[in-house]
Amino acid sequence: MCKSIGWTIAEWKEAQTNSSYEEARHRLLDLVATFKDYKHGDPAWITVASTEHINKQWKELQLMKKNPESLPLYGVPFAVKDNIDVIDFPTTAACPAYLYIPKEDATMVRLIKEAGGIVVGKTNLDQFATGLVGTRSPYGKTPNTFSDKHVSGGSSAGSASVVARGLVPFSLGTDTAGSGRVPASLNNLVGLKPTVGAFSAKGVVPACKSLDCVSIFSLVLSDAQLVFNIAAHFDKDDCYSRRFPQRPLKSFGPTPVFAVPETPLWFGDELNPALFDDAVERLRQQGVKVVKIDFTPLFDLAKCLYEGPWVAERYAAIKDFVQNRKEDMDETVYGIVKQAENFTAADAFAYEYKRRAIVRKIEEIFSSIDGLIVPTCPLFPTMESVAKEPVTVNAHQGTYTNFVNLADLSALAIPVGFRKDGFPFGITLISQKFNDYALLDMAQKFLPASRPLGALPKDKFTAKKGDLLASSIVDNMPRTIPLAVVGAHLTGMPLNWQLQKVEATLARRTKTADYYRLYALANTVPTKPGLRRVLPSDTTLRGEAIEVEIWDVPYRNFGEFVSMVPHPLGIGTIELADGKWVKGFICEQLGYDDAEDITKFGGWRAYKAETTQNLESKPF
Amino acid sequence: MCKSIGWTIAEWKEAQTNSSYEEARHRLLDLVATFKDYKHGDPAWITVASTEHINKQWKELQLMKKNPESLPLYGVPFAVKDNIDVIDFPTTAACPAYLYIPKEDATMVRLIKEAGGIVVGKTNLDQFATGLVGTRSPYGKTPNTFSDKHVSGGSSAGSASVVARGLVPFSLGTDTAGSGRVPASLNNLVGLKPTVGAFSAKGVVPACKSLDCVSIFSLVLSDAQLVFNIAAHFDKDDCYSRRFPQRPLKSFGPTPVFAVPETPLWFGDELNPALFDDAVERLRQQGVKVVKIDFTPLFDLAKCLYEGPWVAERYAAIKDFVQNRKEDMDETVYGIVKQAENFTAADAFAYEYKRRAIVRKIEEIFSSIDGLIVPTCPLFPTMESVAKEPVTVNAHQGTYTNFVNLADLSALAIPVGFRKDGFPFGITLISQKFNDYALLDMAQKFLPASRPLGALPKDKFTAKKGDLLASSIVDNMPRTIPLAVVGAHLTGMPLNWQLQKVEATLARRTKTADYYRLYALANTVPTKPGLRRVLPSDTTLRGEAIEVEIWDVPYRNFGEFVSMVPHPLGIGTIELADGKWVKGFICEQLGYDDAEDITKFGGWRAYKAETTQNLESKPF
Repeated sequence: MCKSIGWTIAEWKEAQTNSSYEEARHRLLDLVATFKDYKHGDPAWITVASTEHINKQWKELQLMKKNPESLPLYGVPFAVKDNIDVIDFPTTAACPAYLYIPKEDATMVRLIKEAGGIVVGKTNLDQFATGLVGTRSPYGKTPNTFSDKHVSGGSSAGSASVVARGLVPFSLGTDTAGSGRVPASLNNLVGLKPTVGAFSAKGVVPACKSLDCVSIFSLVLSDAQLVFNIAAHFDKDDCYSRRFPQRPLKSFGPTPVFAVPETPLWFGDELNPALFDDAVERLRQQGVKVVKIDFTPLFDLAKCLYEGPWVAERYAAIKDFVQNRKEDMDETVYGIVKQAENFTAADAFAYEYKRRAIVRKIEEIFSSIDGLIVPTCPLFPTMESVAKEPVTVNAHQGTYTNFVNLADLSALAIPVGFRKDGFPFGITLISQKFNDYALLDMAQKFLPASRPLGALPKDKFTAKKGDLLASSIVDNMPRTIPLAVVGAHLTGMPLNWQLQKVEATLARRTKTADYYRLYALANTVPTKPGLRRVLPSDTTLRGEAIEVEIWDVPYRNFGEFVSMVPHPLGIGTIELADGKWVKGFICEQLGYDDAEDITKFGGWRAYKAETTQNLESKPF
Repeated sequence: MCKSIGWTIAEWKEAQTNSSYEEARHRLLDLVATFKDYKHGDPAWITVASTEHINKQWKELQLMKKNPESLPLYGVPFAVKDNIDVIDFPTTAACPAYLYIPKEDATMVRLIKEAGGIVVGKTNLDQFATGLVGTRSPYGKTPNTFSDKHVSGGSSAGSASVVARGLVPFSLGTDTAGSGRVPASLNNLVGLKPTVGAFSAKGVVPACKSLDCVSIFSLVLSDAQLVFNIAAHFDKDDCYSRRFPQRPLKSFGPTPVFAVPETPLWFGDELNPALFDDAVERLRQQGVKVVKIDFTPLFDLAKCLYEGPWVAERYAAIKDFVQNRKEDMDETVYGIVKQAENFTAADAFAYEYKRRAIVRKIEEIFSSIDGLIVPTCPLFPTMESVAKEPVTVNAHQGTYTNFVNLADLSALAIPVGFRKDGFPFGITLISQKFNDYALLDMAQKFLPASRPLGALPKDKFTAKKGDLLASSIVDNMPRTIPLAVVGAHLTGMPLNWQLQKVEATLARRTKTADYYRLYALANTVPTKPGLRRVLPSDTTLRGEAIEVEIWDVPYRNFGEFVSMVPHPLGIGTIELADGKWVKGFICEQLGYDDAEDITKFGGWRAYKAETTQNLESKPF
């Protein structure tokens, strides 16, 4: 057995950067020497990298003349699903007759190579990525890594298999309707299905071009995060590529609200329900507020994918094949894609309207929740059951995955443990588009350090710190700035509307530290106070604690608020009674030099109450 | 002739609010009494409001118990294209057999009624909004308001006609491929085609549901703006409705960059080219930078609409009719919609990919320009030419309108003058989605106060102030805040990166007014100065002018910048040498109380140069 089996990216990177050029190259050659392709007994690999493949990539890596330390994936091996182009490797999409030699790397592969990654092989799939089982391939049925009698799940069967066995730390799959999540669940892996368009699909054989996502399989969470960071870039050459927001949500905060199906569908599986309930309970204990909702709109959307015209996208992608090369296609796949001929353009538009109407309902659901918790798939199917009912079992497996891309949601499949029969079970966390980072953060809090990795020996391989994310993600950009207001901006005072206008919210009422004096500024309309900090060491002019309100001002609107603050006031930094410093109103000296010192009132509100009373009590 | 002919919304509103309940109602009854429907010689009207129609709406208006002053359209009449539902009126879409009585108002109609508007009739159109000519209707061919021998343009033929004749100040049309712009141009009107989804399409008979827009016809620009403000609301019941940004672009600034076609297509028209060139020249004189570009991607997209599967949207909308009621449909319209049967779902997806690929090219064009200036339509067609070549003339007329919704652009058709033969010509300003307000602002600067309105007598009816927008629009939200920096943030100084980080740009170098003193604060790292304003009247401590740099900080990032400013500094308001006040660094008194006064250096840079030199010149 190869020494590098079960290494994560961090372990690979450390080994490779601490090795000589030759040692590092040989480590990769030694690795691929242990691989067998489908012809030699391992249906997970359609093509294994040759010595030439490795040497050429290694040379190109060196030609970049980058410091190995600076390359996050320096010399790290990875596998690529065989519907994604890698230069010098044939692309087959698991259809031998479809084989072509691509002239360039898919954008995703290029980005990972530029970060130092080395492709060590192309993996098997349900032909043309049509399936969630992993058995629809002339290159062989990829078995589950826990049992030869069970399916690996698909369509990214091989990419899941080689990671679960620890041959590579991560691999690329694709995921249109669950192809990146189902195999992750069935092989105890992390499966990251990004927001549609976050990863480029250029150089990928289309399944449903409007829904296709490249996906990531990894043993540990931080590896999925690392590859996500490397790969999430806008690609102008992919017409479905989208720019990721500059400041995406990075955490759902301490008490996320997630929904589970009111009545989960299990299609007869007897072991998974208990594991799902247990996982939900663990999430609840970690502070997640779990609510039950009616999944009808989501299931309706999933149904659209199977009943509706999206299959015509597959047809459009391989038209010539379906029309003229039936004998060269997998029978089940042909049967599915052929159905596209039953749909007219009018049907395509009618279903798009239907999709949008259902998505509106889903948007309403998401207005009160952060996301969904679902079983990744309901079944752990045997080879036999799939052979018997290839379409039905496949459809059942897509129950919780099919609707995700149609509804433009992000999803992260994670392992949660093992059934009584020793087979793994996983759940998927789902949220709105571009919440990919927040999902990673939620998973990080959930996954135990002791969890076993993939199908590796449980005593030797556990997650340890591998699920802890790099801090760049955990550091959550605060969305508001606390601001101490002292005068006309207080609740009920004449300028409080300015805080309302910038959507600020009152956080708390408190006092400043004991080092402030308050003045009633002359000639200001409405009248305003000026706050002056004195030195704590000043014995001649002692400060006192002044009443303030702390308002949370949204970052994006803070500029608008500051622009409304008039001379001689400004926004500086104020010390509060609890010793914390926050942004707050300060005053230039010339503002209070000749002003009335009203410190004794302890605050603007008390001063105003007093002076207003005096006005009212006058006899005229 | 009715006294109210040619009134704008402002004139109507004034008359109605200054009248008694009865006078105001009778003004509307008197108006509709002058209308003739298609049966009585005016093909512009399919249905004219009856006395009951007016009375019922009037009563509902009063039941709202709103102050007439507070309703922007109190008692103002408007017309509605007959593919938009108005309660109590039949909707025909210009197909008598399709007629139904809607149970509720289209969202657009409801919003306008809630603002006080009264529907005075439903207008003729190219059947099912299929056409740009105005002749494809069993209710009659709507003539151009300048000539019986010429077409009105369509499909919103009647809605343009009744506004151009001054019967109503504004009307609703629809615009999928030009139906709201072409008739505006041919009848000397303003035609506002909003961003797709800005107006709700609920209650509108779909043409191409993914592209349909309700549009506005008006005599003057400010009326289009007013209706736009009333109507641009998200509607959760319309699956293509979109939320308008909270802070849309409101102006392209003093020097917009707009592109014109390198080689405009005129299809043989001999009079329009000169008017187009003249309009472009006038825009140039007003500061617009005009560039010529290759329109190929735009024309390619327009071609997609005609050749491609979008016609299947029309088919999906009226499937039953096309399949079973051929004899009840306009022959040309039937021929067009029937073509949908030639398109498969695979074609629909393939064309959607093609559309997206072309849109990517258009996005690249828009990365260096603010918008496009195009002829609204190339021809001023005669009835005869359309009768002879109904499809060809129609296709030519869509040259500059067809691509707009497919590319998700906003457009505003405006009049520019009259040809030698006395007929009107118009141009369309086109920009990216949600730039509707900026287009209005640009048009406002362009349109002369002396321009004639619609087809009204030129000596009596001119725009005057009617094209000037309400200030809510003209006030452009600045996108940056000027900030005066005085110390460590100056160019080349240690904290300048903070300005870079928030994407600020250096605007200019200047000095403060003569009332400031500068101190070198003790114990700050990096060392920082403190700026103190003194009273201009202070004779004991005189201020001086201190060197500052003005940086433009993007509004949205200003909060981030302020959060980096440490105690005892803050952001206040500073007076510059030219007397202007801008945001800038101020300092709390306790910061400079015991600090070195370095005012004599005139600025931080000079002080640092001096002290650094002193350090360097030391012998050790």
